[in-house]
Amino acid sequence: MSSASPAPGDDRIAAAMELAIDLAEQVRGRTSPNPPVGAVILDEYGALAGTGATRPPGGPHAEVMALRQAGPRARGGTAVVTLEPCNHHGRTGPCAEALLDAGVTAVHYAVADPNPQASGGADRLRACGLTVTAGVRAEQVASGPLRAWLHRVRTGRPQLTWKYAATLDGRSAAADGTSQWITGPVARERVHAERGRIDAIVVGTGTVLADDPALTARLPDGTLSATQPLRVVVGRRDIPPGARILDDSAPTVHLRTDDPHEVLAALAAEHCDVQLEGGPRLAAAFLRAGLVDRVQAYLAPVLIGAGQGAVGDLGIGTISAALRFHRESVDVLGEDILLTLVPDGPAADCQEDR
Amino acid sequence: MSSASPAPGDDRIAAAMELAIDLAEQVRGRTSPNPPVGAVILDEYGALAGTGATRPPGGPHAEVMALRQAGPRARGGTAVVTLEPCNHHGRTGPCAEALLDAGVTAVHYAVADPNPQASGGADRLRACGLTVTAGVRAEQVASGPLRAWLHRVRTGRPQLTWKYAATLDGRSAAADGTSQWITGPVARERVHAERGRIDAIVVGTGTVLADDPALTARLPDGTLSATQPLRVVVGRRDIPPGARILDDSAPTVHLRTDDPHEVLAALAAEHCDVQLEGGPRLAAAFLRAGLVDRVQAYLAPVLIGAGQGAVGDLGIGTISAALRFHRESVDVLGEDILLTLVPDGPAADCQEDR
Ligand SMILES: NC(=O)c1ccc[n+]([C@@H]2O[C@H](COP(=O)([O-])OP(=O)(O)OC[C@H]3O[C@@H](n4cnc5c(N)ncnc54)[C@H](OP(=O)(O)O)[C@@H]3O)[C@@H](O)[C@H]2O)c1
Ligand SMILES: NC(=O)c1ccc[n+]([C@@H]2O[C@H](COP(=O)([O-])OP(=O)(O)OC[C@H]3O[C@@H](n4cnc5c(N)ncnc54)[C@H](OP(=O)(O)O)[C@@H]3O)[C@@H](O)[C@H]2O)c1
Repeated sequence: MSSASPAPGDDRIAAAMELAIDLAEQVRGRTSPNPPVGAVILDEYGALAGTGATRPPGGPHAEVMALRQAGPRARGGTAVVTLEPCNHHGRTGPCAEALLDAGVTAVHYAVADPNPQASGGADRLRACGLTVTAGVRAEQVASGPLRAWLHRVRTGRPQLTWKYAATLDGRSAAADGTSQWITGPVARERVHAERGRIDAIVVGTGTVLADDPALTARLPDGTLSATQPLRVVVGRRDIPPGARILDDSAPTVHLRTDDPHEVLAALAAEHCDVQLEGGPRLAAAFLRAGLVDRVQAYLAPVLIGAGQGAVGDLGIGTISAALRFHRESVDVLGEDILLTLVPDGPAADCQEDR
Repeated sequence: MSSASPAPGDDRIAAAMELAIDLAEQVRGRTSPNPPVGAVILDEYGALAGTGATRPPGGPHAEVMALRQAGPRARGGTAVVTLEPCNHHGRTGPCAEALLDAGVTAVHYAVADPNPQASGGADRLRACGLTVTAGVRAEQVASGPLRAWLHRVRTGRPQLTWKYAATLDGRSAAADGTSQWITGPVARERVHAERGRIDAIVVGTGTVLADDPALTARLPDGTLSATQPLRVVVGRRDIPPGARILDDSAPTVHLRTDDPHEVLAALAAEHCDVQLEGGPRLAAAFLRAGLVDRVQAYLAPVLIGAGQGAVGDLGIGTISAALRFHRESVDVLGEDILLTLVPDGPAADCQEDR
């Protein structure tokens, strides 16, 4: 390992970017509408001097947090950031200026800022004589911590993930309405961990009336996680007073509409990462509207032979017209498996224009 | 590598057993009611002298095939076999005698012969002064090439695998009855390869009338595989003349019964490895009878929202009563996945006694 300042392509930059990605993942679900970003400062010898991640809205950006930790060691050093440093005066000052003020001489980032308001940071830094490289681990960041935020910048809509649990024969509840528990403890723990990292969780009134779910993110011991998603109930029927979804463990909104587009429009300003947790009728409505960007199917090794299907009527009568997806991953979670899928063919983004 | 005759535990014995397992796998589906066995002869220096696998019924056993290939090099050598050499005069002479006659001085095998008629081979060889070890790669053989045969010896029934293809929402046909193609080419190729290695394939009259399937094992180019399973149609309705299942590419039997036990009893004498390929009503009948020993679910990343469920009514109304399985494996087959499962809790064997 050399002790000189790392040149572009140096292993220390790649390692710093991996760390920055971890830092960003840790604040995912706590920064919307801002992107979850991670930043690492290396000193002039290439040694770790500071780390930071986006604070909740109104708080400092990742670069500022990392520069604070690095203090005078940032001078002559290198910044490694998951997103191009911003160049605009929002609620906080521009990060590009903060990096210049601190005397950093090189900046390496993963993804360019697609936001026209905030972009230009890289140009500003280059104009001041800094070494700037873009695209370090760009794919990993774009499909990782920045995925939902980039989706929203690109489409104007939050990213919608439909998550459901079903038996092998595709039932999400038995004939008597029972659905707890289809999946096992490992899968349930994963669901709760994921809830702590999203911005909002959507269900129909049907699910509220049938199951009275709390829809909170809980730790394995049953206590509430540090961050909770907004709970969103969709449908014209009233939520019964005393429903668990109205408790004070997280905020809740009730959208009295049957239009999936309206639901996403209502959430777009403040939320990037939205999870639809059922039930079958609301899921079918989002699928029919072409608004499902990702499916997370938790499948249990269970057969039941009757009961409610995982998805309601899609208006599809023949196999060649079925909705086809592309697999992103298969995870084994105890006895269950989790399939993560994205729509095939025309991206969900385009379907609105048809 | 030593050039002396390999002692028990020698790597050359393990390697020979791996080869014997491969040889046995290659004849799986061609030997019933006899077990598919592989045998390897090492000469007195531990070098490969002969290989063999069970020939179709009436033909020589694996040991005899391997001894023939080894010729005089078997003298002072070692036999490595997946199953304990038999000790009885069936259609062929006892393999234990053949090994003695050839002058082999050591025998290593995987699985003891559970068949009281045929067992005693190891004792006979030991009594004649040979070195004999049992249990080499026993688990691999018992869950591999000998699995179905051992199941039949133990239970008196063929091993029944229920294979089905379904969408993610558990549909095995669309509302208009179409089911081709739910899964993609990689999964279909696997299904055909598997058909070439089983003894019989079972469907209900409903599937014959709806789909007119050929139920043959075919190569990727569409031509017939070298071995074909017996085709079995179950149900009281007639098979229409001209149905593809009556063509001359493989034998077909029609069992006019609605009792799954009768189906297996009719097949037990000649068949060890039976695959049920649907449809939902016949599958439900076998599941209700506790006669499904293994499930192979080919799941496509497809949603359809309506159509026929993969399994018919199981008489189960609440989630806690659902049939639970234990996962043996998850295979990725192109865009599809294959889940292989065995029943949880009381083995299928025991359920008949309840
Ligand atoms: N296993 C799982 O993953 C899972 C997850 C969730 C739920 N579930 C099960 O699902 C069942 C509830 O099913 P569900 O279908 O009634 O629940 P749902 O989809 O959550 O709620 C249906 C309601 O959503 C509202 N809605 C809003 N826009 C709609 C649209 N475009 N189309 C249709 N409905 C729209 C309607 O409310 P209004 O009638 O009030 O207007 C409708 O009645 C329960 O048994 C529950 O256990 C299972
Ligand atoms: N995706 C897949 O993996 C897959 C596989 C196979 C079939 N399929 C689809 O399944 C559909 C056919 O469904 P199906 O349920 O009619 O087919 P099936 O289960 O193959 O046949 C049902 C028939 O089996 C006979 N049977 C014998 N014993 C029975 C028992 N104990 N209980 C019930 N029936 C018994 C009955 O025949 P009798 O009435 O003549 O006595 C019954 O009508 C087709 O649309 C086909 O495409 C899909």
